[in-house]
Amino acid sequence: MRIDGRKNEGLRPIKLTRNYTKYAEGSVLIEMGDTKVLCNASIEEKVPPFLKGSGEGWITAEYNMLPRSTQSRKPRDIAKLKIDGRTMEIQRLIGRALRSVVDLKALGEKTIWIDCDVIQADGGTRTASISGAFVALVDAVNRLHKNQPFKVFPIRSFVGAVSVGILNDEKIIDLCYEEDSKAKVDMNIVMTDSGEFIEVQGTGEESPFSRKDLDELLSLGERGVKHIIQAQKDVLKTDSLWIGTGGK
Amino acid sequence: MRIDGRKNEGLRPIKLTRNYTKYAEGSVLIEMGDTKVLCNASIEEKVPPFLKGSGEGWITAEYNMLPRSTQSRKPRDIAKLKIDGRTMEIQRLIGRALRSVVDLKALGEKTIWIDCDVIQADGGTRTASISGAFVALVDAVNRLHKNQPFKVFPIRSFVGAVSVGILNDEKIIDLCYEEDSKAKVDMNIVMTDSGEFIEVQGTGEESPFSRKDLDELLSLGERGVKHIIQAQKDVLKTDSLWIGTGGK
Amino acid sequence: MRIDGRKNEGLRPIKLTRNYTKYAEGSVLIEMGDTKVLCNASIEEKVPPFLKGSGEGWITAEYNMLPRSTQSRKPRDIAKLKIDGRTMEIQRLIGRALRSVVDLKALGEKTIWIDCDVIQADGGTRTASISGAFVALVDAVNRLHKNQPFKVFPIRSFVGAVSVGILNDEKIIDLCYEEDSKAKVDMNIVMTDSGEFIEVQGTGEESPFSRKDLDELLSLGERGVKHIIQAQKDVLKTDSLWIGTGGK
Amino acid sequence: MRIDGRKNEGLRPIKLTRNYTKYAEGSVLIEMGDTKVLCNASIEEKVPPFLKGSGEGWITAEYNMLPRSTQSRKPRDIAKLKIDGRTMEIQRLIGRALRSVVDLKALGEKTIWIDCDVIQADGGTRTASISGAFVALVDAVNRLHKNQPFKVFPIRSFVGAVSVGILNDEKIIDLCYEEDSKAKVDMNIVMTDSGEFIEVQGTGEESPFSRKDLDELLSLGERGVKHIIQAQKDVLKTDSLWIGTGGK
Amino acid sequence: MRIDGRKNEGLRPIKLTRNYTKYAEGSVLIEMGDTKVLCNASIEEKVPPFLKGSGEGWITAEYNMLPRSTQSRKPRDIAKLKIDGRTMEIQRLIGRALRSVVDLKALGEKTIWIDCDVIQADGGTRTASISGAFVALVDAVNRLHKNQPFKVFPIRSFVGAVSVGILNDEKIIDLCYEEDSKAKVDMNIVMTDSGEFIEVQGTGEESPFSRKDLDELLSLGERGVKHIIQAQKDVLKTDSLWIGTGGK
Amino acid sequence: MRIDGRKNEGLRPIKLTRNYTKYAEGSVLIEMGDTKVLCNASIEEKVPPFLKGSGEGWITAEYNMLPRSTQSRKPRDIAKLKIDGRTMEIQRLIGRALRSVVDLKALGEKTIWIDCDVIQADGGTRTASISGAFVALVDAVNRLHKNQPFKVFPIRSFVGAVSVGILNDEKIIDLCYEEDSKAKVDMNIVMTDSGEFIEVQGTGEESPFSRKDLDELLSLGERGVKHIIQAQKDVLKTDSLWIGTGGK
Repeated sequence: MRIDGRKNEGLRPIKLTRNYTKYAEGSVLIEMGDTKVLCNASIEEKVPPFLKGSGEGWITAEYNMLPRSTQSRKPRDIAKLKIDGRTMEIQRLIGRALRSVVDLKALGEKTIWIDCDVIQADGGTRTASISGAFVALVDAVNRLHKNQPFKVFPIRSFVGAVSVGILNDEKIIDLCYEEDSKAKVDMNIVMTDSGEFIEVQGTGEESPFSRKDLDELLSLGERGVKHIIQAQKDVLKTDSLWIGTGGK
Repeated sequence: MRIDGRKNEGLRPIKLTRNYTKYAEGSVLIEMGDTKVLCNASIEEKVPPFLKGSGEGWITAEYNMLPRSTQSRKPRDIAKLKIDGRTMEIQRLIGRALRSVVDLKALGEKTIWIDCDVIQADGGTRTASISGAFVALVDAVNRLHKNQPFKVFPIRSFVGAVSVGILNDEKIIDLCYEEDSKAKVDMNIVMTDSGEFIEVQGTGEESPFSRKDLDELLSLGERGVKHIIQAQKDVLKTDSLWIGTGGK
Repeated sequence: MRIDGRKNEGLRPIKLTRNYTKYAEGSVLIEMGDTKVLCNASIEEKVPPFLKGSGEGWITAEYNMLPRSTQSRKPRDIAKLKIDGRTMEIQRLIGRALRSVVDLKALGEKTIWIDCDVIQADGGTRTASISGAFVALVDAVNRLHKNQPFKVFPIRSFVGAVSVGILNDEKIIDLCYEEDSKAKVDMNIVMTDSGEFIEVQGTGEESPFSRKDLDELLSLGERGVKHIIQAQKDVLKTDSLWIGTGGK
Repeated sequence: MRIDGRKNEGLRPIKLTRNYTKYAEGSVLIEMGDTKVLCNASIEEKVPPFLKGSGEGWITAEYNMLPRSTQSRKPRDIAKLKIDGRTMEIQRLIGRALRSVVDLKALGEKTIWIDCDVIQADGGTRTASISGAFVALVDAVNRLHKNQPFKVFPIRSFVGAVSVGILNDEKIIDLCYEEDSKAKVDMNIVMTDSGEFIEVQGTGEESPFSRKDLDELLSLGERGVKHIIQAQKDVLKTDSLWIGTGGK
Repeated sequence: MRIDGRKNEGLRPIKLTRNYTKYAEGSVLIEMGDTKVLCNASIEEKVPPFLKGSGEGWITAEYNMLPRSTQSRKPRDIAKLKIDGRTMEIQRLIGRALRSVVDLKALGEKTIWIDCDVIQADGGTRTASISGAFVALVDAVNRLHKNQPFKVFPIRSFVGAVSVGILNDEKIIDLCYEEDSKAKVDMNIVMTDSGEFIEVQGTGEESPFSRKDLDELLSLGERGVKHIIQAQKDVLKTDSLWIGTGGK
Repeated sequence: MRIDGRKNEGLRPIKLTRNYTKYAEGSVLIEMGDTKVLCNASIEEKVPPFLKGSGEGWITAEYNMLPRSTQSRKPRDIAKLKIDGRTMEIQRLIGRALRSVVDLKALGEKTIWIDCDVIQADGGTRTASISGAFVALVDAVNRLHKNQPFKVFPIRSFVGAVSVGILNDEKIIDLCYEEDSKAKVDMNIVMTDSGEFIEVQGTGEESPFSRKDLDELLSLGERGVKHIIQAQKDVLKTDSLWIGTGGK
């Protein structure tokens, strides 16, 4: 049994609150246990220079932890005039994950800014950011679609993410902070609702892992992402214009 | 009647939620209507260089708007490598306001970091930050006091703040964003529970104002701060070790 | 009697030297006792992006202390890659004060840059900057007016500024550095020649102040600004094309 | 057949030149085809603050592309005052990979700086950096060991890295730039000489990939890393004090 | 005859005003015609890390042009977060020139900061900075000497500087801005009062120059520096404790 | 005899390797003894803003030392967010030296970027950068000329550079690091193949030097640059379209 009583394959309670703030075109608070991330999607009617005139859109993400989202206060990036490397790595991951399920041609020359601000961090903030930001993205695209319907709805599939890892020789899912800080192997898995992989990142900085370990972690992660995508579908199904391949 | 139906002297509903996040020594979400600011107070067991060895403590504040707390997305400071001037001005104001009611000698060589992160901005974020941060500060000092009682409780009085202004020749209080953006005169008032002033800042960039206008705005603000301080007392009275001069 | 022999309501000697440098369209050295600030006004034939095409002009100010304008050497901003908060606050104040008396539509699509560089700081540098920069601004606008007369002269009224404060329970005006560093309450007052307020900023970080204190400080400041504006008029009257409402 | 005539499972020619520069404690030029990276290892007799007094050492990596290592000139980071996100991601990966095979306690309170400077980039610079930097690291540790033998030689195993990907539905290894820029799936694999994984990073930004694809890519990568580690052993075996588990 | 009526070998009027500001240990305004530079010398009772414990002192210089010291307004360095290259080059030159005539061991563990702020720039600001800063340096060292006499007075010789150049095939000295901007060859010469060279920097970016040109420019410069050093001696002789080798 | 057995007037072995990397339009590795600098020239089909529409081209240089090109590791500029002053000075020198021999009108609206990256530093990196970069520049201009012949070949003369100095009262040329760090006088000389000077920079920070010293150093440098330019001609003569004034 785990620190918080979960089974190895047990996710923490997921809660997705849509329209959490009033200005953003998509605004979702995702809670995975005590991890809370505010994911806002903003539409901008222009694209970065490298896409100007291409007819294609862009999705870019920024990730940030509020200074006291963590156990000890983390100074703001601006105080050091540098984005820290971990933040940079995470926001690139979120951006790639969301772009991978969007038809940027169908979107047209717009940028969707994804802001993931961590209110409280208890492990798994990067995967929660992806899972929450996807719902905010759907809401933002729905809003565009209502004003002026796309020929092809620009979102191609659902995307969800989860962490898995090895702690005390057990393979576990959705690690809380205490587990995460002790785990020997740490892996993040990003998948679509058709069960395909978008991104797999596994690190054994503390100790290398075997092919067999890797296989088991992948299987554990696959099952977890399915649950998370189901939660996304549940919260969207009441009014989203699109709800996966079957729902266009 | 005002845009949202209030009278000139009417405040928006105030809501103070204590213990909003779990790590900070003091954590308060303040809502003034649609303005929502998360105010966290963190204790650090050291002081800035200029106070080392002095026996005195310090209180410093950082203020930040989440990128989509506003109507159109505001880029993060780190993207420009500069804190914008307005942010700098506001965080200095918050710091001064809180320090003015704290006995820094009684506090001893500690720094209390105040982080005011604006989740949603609908006018009056700087005054809401002061009013909310004060409650977070009391909670943080209470926590210190429980572990190791101070000889003199370091907080000397309550402090609250409110905005007033002149719009269409009417003097109004607690301006929402729409009012604020049209007001000719804009004033922020910071006061203690004994009815004294900590800070008065009035600007007539659009149009100068007379001594009589100034006097009326001050009176309007005085009444408003009293209500806000009452709300602080209400939310603290259940369990705070200190609840103003009478409650030490 | 005060440190330097002045009465409570006595200003230090004011000296305004026009055409202090040869390149700037307006160049004024203001001296208030030992406080010396070089105020240059420069015309630029374009406006910031947010005004492009609006037909309106802009006035922006930068304030800077030379490293050894102060008792101990103050490192340059560039050495820390950051403008310090106090500087930011002051340059925003100077900009607001000057814009408030200028008809930006009448000015047309131009920017006037105000550079206030403190040569020697002995208290009251921000108010001296406003009082001196106004004269530089008039000279720069006069120069434009000579080349190509404005339909409406863009300056609407004089603006002057002074500091007041409470030291040893006495209300005093135009504090020198030694007084300023010990004062309990510190207030800056910016007014027009018609006796209206542009900006009022009072801070009681060391100790709160009563409504009665505030009223007395305002009255003291009102009288002081009148003298300062008179000095501006005296130095401009020989050749300025505009010399207040009566002199257009 | 691939662009450059290789089979899907064929690596480009590997060349490791030791002692490439004269000052660094370890200095290796690695060439994988036209990709050329200079990997220098430098010993510093102190550790970052978070390890001071811990008795443990640290390994940190910096990665940089010379401006004209690429087809079109890439501006230097300093010109933008920002390390770009890709660089940050890569240098964190290199650092983790090398730390994972070093016993930091056995190393003692020293920092080993790894500098990977890309002279010419033709795909796979991050994996080449890891493979080359490992040899530089061994040389630097050998040098320490000669001066003052470690009780336990701090390097625990060999580490090598390779890229794999999917291009035109073919799984290929060690992609050159032209292949890399067209590949749908891109994966980097870091392994030890005992065949265990240190890091697996696979991205399908262009198109998601199936579990079967993932399995095949992993197998392809495993075989490639073996060859690379063999090349490391070949170049070290003449004089290295340590040459894998059997050679301590 | 030159633009301003001077002969080829004629310097502009030199004016050195000591004690220009009241806080700096040495404060000199140097005027060479319309070029005006404020040179302040500040004593700091510590040295940079590389000299800690060495018993030696240090002299470092900062150079800066006020934004409107030039014909068109030059943005401040802090606005671009970068010191411009020319500034960097000049402040390094000033520092080297002054250190070359100071016995840093005799000075002891102190830093003397030299701040050269250009009030008005009409050519030759770098050489004027050196000539003026030297006098400020002498005043600062005199002040130290009065408080606690040095065993060996730390200044070894006078140092002065002048610019020379080739314009319309004429060799001229002390170029004003208009001449400088058209000159084909530009040279700065820094010398001691014993007629030795400290620094020679000649550039023929517009057109290369012969050995004969170089020789003539050097001779012209030698004569000019002598005059400048005489002006330094004249202004110091009334009360300086040291006035060159003969005056210790 | 010198440290490495050379005579006072002896250069170290010069080696110029053309086409050192494959992407740059000109790519030269220059070796002067153990000093190794990679000089790449890149063509960009636009000019900086101040030349837009002028019909003229531009040449700009960047200089950088790899972190372990030196005896102890030198942190990268980006780690301090500042280009260090010495680097700035050197890259400005390289830019001026190359522009001085190029007819920027004949070049037309193009920028040639010169990147000098020091692989190994053993004294004289700035002069080696100039000598090597010139060959890279010729190769880049040759490439342009082959595609579309210039009316006037834009390079007007060869340019080479060498260091000279005074060590132990001996005048020596092409100082290695050990000599350079002990020399009293240090001078860099940049000349054309017609024996004219482009730049002369001599510094006697440690001790001033006489006119006679200066004359001897200049003569020593003149002879050295001739040899270096001969080496440039030798390496270019096989295939360069231009090989000095006689070879247009």
